[in-house]
Amino acid sequence: MRLYFDFISPYAYLVWHAIHPLAERHGRTVEPVPIVLAVLLNAYGHLGPAEIPPKRVYAFKDVAWKAAALGLTVQPPPSHPFNPLLALRVVGLADGAQRDRLISALYDEVWAGGRGVERPEVVAEVAEACGVEDPIARATAPESKVRLKANTAEALRAGAFGVPTIVADGELFWGVDSLPHLDRFLTGENPVDPDLLQRWLDLPASASR
Amino acid sequence: MRLYFDFISPYAYLVWHAIHPLAERHGRTVEPVPIVLAVLLNAYGHLGPAEIPPKRVYAFKDVAWKAAALGLTVQPPPSHPFNPLLALRVVGLADGAQRDRLISALYDEVWAGGRGVERPEVVAEVAEACGVEDPIARATAPESKVRLKANTAEALRAGAFGVPTIVADGELFWGVDSLPHLDRFLTGENPVDPDLLQRWLDLPASASR
Repeated sequence: MRLYFDFISPYAYLVWHAIHPLAERHGRTVEPVPIVLAVLLNAYGHLGPAEIPPKRVYAFKDVAWKAAALGLTVQPPPSHPFNPLLALRVVGLADGAQRDRLISALYDEVWAGGRGVERPEVVAEVAEACGVEDPIARATAPESKVRLKANTAEALRAGAFGVPTIVADGELFWGVDSLPHLDRFLTGENPVDPDLLQRWLDLPASASR
Repeated sequence: MRLYFDFISPYAYLVWHAIHPLAERHGRTVEPVPIVLAVLLNAYGHLGPAEIPPKRVYAFKDVAWKAAALGLTVQPPPSHPFNPLLALRVVGLADGAQRDRLISALYDEVWAGGRGVERPEVVAEVAEACGVEDPIARATAPESKVRLKANTAEALRAGAFGVPTIVADGELFWGVDSLPHLDRFLTGENPVDPDLLQRWLDLPASASR
């Protein structure tokens, strides 16, 4: 399963911690793919939850409820929104278990009371502690920028419009709330009636704003 | 509890059917308040799920998963988006159990394989079957328009940014996914740390789009 994420989202943080036990139960592996949420939002002229004042308040409370249900806690980062690009590019320098450790450590700097991931010295320290050599120079090299752009373009092609988005066997699951659906999907369940879905896709609009 | 809703939203349809048993378990009553989702979206320059092409596809699947979990089914209406104003204004002509029956019957016309609620003759037939006299003339009178506008303004003041929104004891719950939170909130639980929430509200932004 591919997990498209951006450190900016506390929902993506929760899913990062919840997805691994879920994947293990189904004998699946998780391929984390860093992407830039802002590019997805720009593509559709859409707003993130933190960009609508009352939704920004609501989102923090909602995250607290969802975190509690998952046995996790979330703390505000030093600033938000912040620029996640360096942290996202650094992730592209690692692979496998090393990459998973790096993602967890960077997430902790954002959503578990850490120092945030905007300062290069913090990102460098975290990456080096995970065994990534020369992280800042390599993360700011053109290849790293191209890789992050390609990841984000892939997410858009897959139909992602937000983070976290999981794609499993061609089906897309968005957000913490979709984890129970994913869990049942991986056992072979699927309540979506293809004929009704087709009717929905073919519906005329009879009003617009 | 006040439940702000618009017939346009299949999520609001699901919550309409799920909220009553939940309220009963806690000895609460549900006061349904028809509002215009488009006005909320316009207020924040926001897009509804059906206005982002891949999210429109996703939403129907998501609704099917959530409906299945609640033991419900959802069918596409004859058109979508459609103009819900007449149906929303007609709701304002009834009260109490009559209003609940009217809302259920109008929802059935939209999301349970019915004829939609854009044609005045359909809305009239449904309203008259629920005992509402002279529904179309009264729903199109200035008082009905003013009432719907006042409801929507009240929802905005309460901090609503989408539908369905439930306000219980001053706390806001949005969407099907918030029902488990509401359920626990009504037993006295609340995982939101007021100090962390205040920190979140006071956070500086260090990046913007």
